[in-house]
Formats: sequence, structure tokens, C-alpha cells
Amino acid sequence: MKLLRVGPAGHERPALLDADGVARDIGGLLGGAEGAGGARDIDGSLLADPDALARIAAADPAGLPALDAGLRIGPPLARIGKIVCIGLNYHDHAIETGAQPPAEPVVFMKAPDTVVGPYDTVLVPRGSTKTDWEVELAVVIGRELRYAASRQEAMAAVAGYAVAHDVSEREFQTERGGQWDKGKNCETFNPLGPWLVTADEVPDPQALSLKLWVNGRLRQDGTTGDQIFPVAEVVRYLSHFMTLYPGDVINTGTPAGVALGQPEPRPYLRAGDVVELTIDGLGRQRQELKPA
Amino acid sequence: MKLLRVGPAGHERPALLDADGVARDIGGLLGGAEGAGGARDIDGSLLADPDALARIAAADPAGLPALDAGLRIGPPLARIGKIVCIGLNYHDHAIETGAQPPAEPVVFMKAPDTVVGPYDTVLVPRGSTKTDWEVELAVVIGRELRYAASRQEAMAAVAGYAVAHDVSEREFQTERGGQWDKGKNCETFNPLGPWLVTADEVPDPQALSLKLWVNGRLRQDGTTGDQIFPVAEVVRYLSHFMTLYPGDVINTGTPAGVALGQPEPRPYLRAGDVVELTIDGLGRQRQELKPA
Repeated sequence: MKLLRVGPAGHERPALLDADGVARDIGGLLGGAEGAGGARDIDGSLLADPDALARIAAADPAGLPALDAGLRIGPPLARIGKIVCIGLNYHDHAIETGAQPPAEPVVFMKAPDTVVGPYDTVLVPRGSTKTDWEVELAVVIGRELRYAASRQEAMAAVAGYAVAHDVSEREFQTERGGQWDKGKNCETFNPLGPWLVTADEVPDPQALSLKLWVNGRLRQDGTTGDQIFPVAEVVRYLSHFMTLYPGDVINTGTPAGVALGQPEPRPYLRAGDVVELTIDGLGRQRQELKPA
Repeated sequence: MKLLRVGPAGHERPALLDADGVARDIGGLLGGAEGAGGARDIDGSLLADPDALARIAAADPAGLPALDAGLRIGPPLARIGKIVCIGLNYHDHAIETGAQPPAEPVVFMKAPDTVVGPYDTVLVPRGSTKTDWEVELAVVIGRELRYAASRQEAMAAVAGYAVAHDVSEREFQTERGGQWDKGKNCETFNPLGPWLVTADEVPDPQALSLKLWVNGRLRQDGTTGDQIFPVAEVVRYLSHFMTLYPGDVINTGTPAGVALGQPEPRPYLRAGDVVELTIDGLGRQRQELKPA
């Protein structure tokens, strides 16, 4: 299934993408009662509820209300618990940044409040001269996981996948003291979606092409087959350092082609630029940059 | 006011600590309707609601239901958005770790799911040999803040303060590749509370004594007066790299005396150890360590 959330920011309706690309309202299928977190939505509690997922899968999309195609598409997941990011996880990207390929996954964090919809505006932070792009495969967790004993156990906790844009400010990230998080958590720095594609529709997460264009020029053109640590290993590994919960997101790293990897003068993003990105089967994003 | 949340994990009741140290149920004062995030609780939406805070402040505690003193005290804040942490923010702690005092705040993140109550068990991660303690002043945000123009504007966004225990696994943090977050996000690694003390009761956040004992032995004995970047500067600075929202928490760093700063063999925490910590006016925590 392709799940999405449609409507104004903060007021999205849960929906299913039908075979014709029409968003169908699934609010009536999620269970009428409000959970502890408020109205039912596409969130961790839904992803951890096989009965609710089965009801959605069994429904005839033609019988569900069609949502206006002109409505905004929001991020496909509400109430994200945490976003764990893997750095330098593609051989070619590690090389272009001048780093050694890491011996273990490099881990940093983005706050869930950085998440916006796939077509929303991305803000260039005030004072930024090095805002950069990163197309990434996002993994969405559907089952609590701690100390996974195997990659198989880890993969059983994966509910689905989405396109993530791990927008990054390189000066803030590496030239302002300390840890990368400082350049990863600016407002709007994590467009997510358009869809949450359930894991059954992604038989091999290591065989996905990722592409990103800036102002129409192809800048990243990679495949998840080049990941140093594949999805199953990333999820297994992380579960030994933190507990993963339904509704958590893992950004699994970016392939070569970011601005940081280009010769000087590096083509960092500026207001007015347009970034488009896509991953096989997971849909397409498009953001215009504006000043914060 | 001293706000707290009392009851089993995940089912805490919002309360006020009265002058006699009795927790009084304030559920009836928060507003009957459920907000977008579910039932009203002590969370960002409450801290951003001056009318609700005024109702609580105006209530006669003796008229509010007393909660059983034997009930568990949970973390004093629900639905935390993000936890931003400042590293090496005390001169003496920077020196003991062998680091230079930083020129700008060092920023890293903890996931809100690491938060537990002030008397809850702390788990030593599997495979850990370097689990360490850190008493910290936590700042709780009550107003959305971006690009604060002054320290005054930053302080106006501070709703209150609490004791935080920034439990840290040093091998995971610095010897396993990459970023500190890997050693900061283990399950139960952020005891918070017992109370959220509103800012009006903390006239000078730079004049607070912080102490931490392990198995009865005093290990940390510092003052927020030694912070390299005071609270007002930390909040101002962060707002230029990320948006702060009501319900966000900032752990403002730890003074000297952590295990990492001791001579070999360093006294890292093990199952069975007991940690107690306190900050002037903000209450006391006590955790027993158990194996994960």
C-alpha cells in the first residue's frame, strides 16, 4: 500500500493512493475511537496495529471518498518519535566528502519538527552559505525493537519506506564546533514523502535507484545497492544503541553528488532554487528554496 | 509553581506540588476539551497557554484532590518534542575530559523516548563498560522561538526548569565512530524531574548548585555559575540553528566529576549502583542501575 496524508499542514487527512493515483480517504477505516495520541492517523500506533492495516488493505479503494487532487500532500507519517540518520553510508559519498568509509554506522539525529511535506517550501537558514541537498531512503519502523539478534528480526520491524530529503547546512554541521546535529535541524530540513510505501511493496530495499536534481540538473544518481551498511544491518545495529519504536524514522544516508562534493565554487542552495528527488517506487518530491 | 505528573508510566496524572509537598491533581484545571494531542496534560500546549497556567496558579491547592504519596512520580513533561543537549558547557568539565572549552555551544540530541521518571530504573546497555552520569539543568521551552534577537527574547520563551540526568555511554559516544548521539540515546538515559519548576520561581538560573552522588559518594558538586554559555545564551544561540517549540527541552551541560574525568580505573556505572542528584529548588532524583 501507499499511504499518504492530504490537506493543510497540521490538518492532514489519512489516505491511500489507489491504482490510478487518486488519494482515497481512509479516516473511516482507522478505528473510530481516539487513541491516547488523539485522532487516529497514519502514525506509529497504526503501523503497529495489524488489524487496522488489514482493514485498509482489504478495502475497495473505489468505495472510499476521493480527495481533491489539488490538495497539499503532507508528510505521510504523523507523530514521528525520532529520526535517526546514518552518515557516510554510500562508498561514493564518503569518498567525495574526503572521509574514510566508516567501520561502523555513523549516527546522528534530526528532530521530528524538521519534517515537512514533499512539495513544501524549504527554508535557507539565515546566515547560511552552505545549504546542501541529500536524497535518502527513509525506513519507517512499525514494531518495537531492542537488541535485535539478527538482520531478519530487524527487518520484521520495518513497516515501510519513503523518500526523505536530509537537507544539511555544512558550515553549521562541521565548522561551528562539535556535532553534526547543529547543521541538520534547521526548520523544514526534512521533507518526507509523498508516500509511506509498505514493506511488502519493496521486496529488495538494496535495489532502489535514487536521483536528485537541482534546477533541472541531475546531481545525485545512485542506488541503495551501494550502501555500506544495508537497511537490515542499519536497523539491527541501531537497536543495540537505542530502542526503536513504531513511528520512528531512519534516514539511511545519501549517495555521491551533494554540493559539498563538487569542485569550488560549490553550488550550495540559494533562495529560488528548485530541488526534485525521487526513489524507485517511492514517488517524487519537489521543493522550492526560500529565505528563512 | 512546581508541576509534576504522578502515576504509572504512560498513565500519569497532572499535578501541582503544594507547600506541604503534597501532589494535588490539576486535571480539572487544564480545560475539559481534548486538544489535538489528546487529553490535556503538562505539555507544550499547556505551557504555551497563559490562561490555563493562570487557572492553576490561582487555584487553592487545599481544594484540589490530594494524590497518594506512594504513587510513582513520572517525568514532569509529556509529549516532549525534542531534547537538545549542550556539551562541554562547564569550564571544569571541559578540562577534565581533555577538551578545549568550546568557542560556541556544542550541540547534540537525545530522543524524547529516553525520558523516564526521576526514580525510575536506569538500564546499563548490553555490552556497556562505560556508562556515565551527568547532572544537568534542563530548560523547558514554553513559546515558539526562532532567530531570537537578544538574550531577553530568548528568556521570555523559557517556561521553567527541571533536573535532568544526561546518562551517557562513553565508548558508544566517542569510540564507535562518528557522533556523540550514539552514546546518548540508550533506553532510560534521560531521567527528568521530579518537578517542572516555573521560571518565576528561578530568578537566577546561573546561581544553582548541582550535586550528584554515586552509592552515597559525592561525585559532582558544581554551580550553574560556571556555565561557559549561560541559559539565556544557549537558548538564543540554538534558536538560530533550529526552531524551539513549546515542550522542547534543553539539557544545558554538566559540571566536573563524571566517571570519564576520574583516574583509571574509572568508576563507570554498573548494575546495582545507585545515583542520586539534586539541583537547588528543583528537587532530587534517585535511580538504581539494572542490566538492559
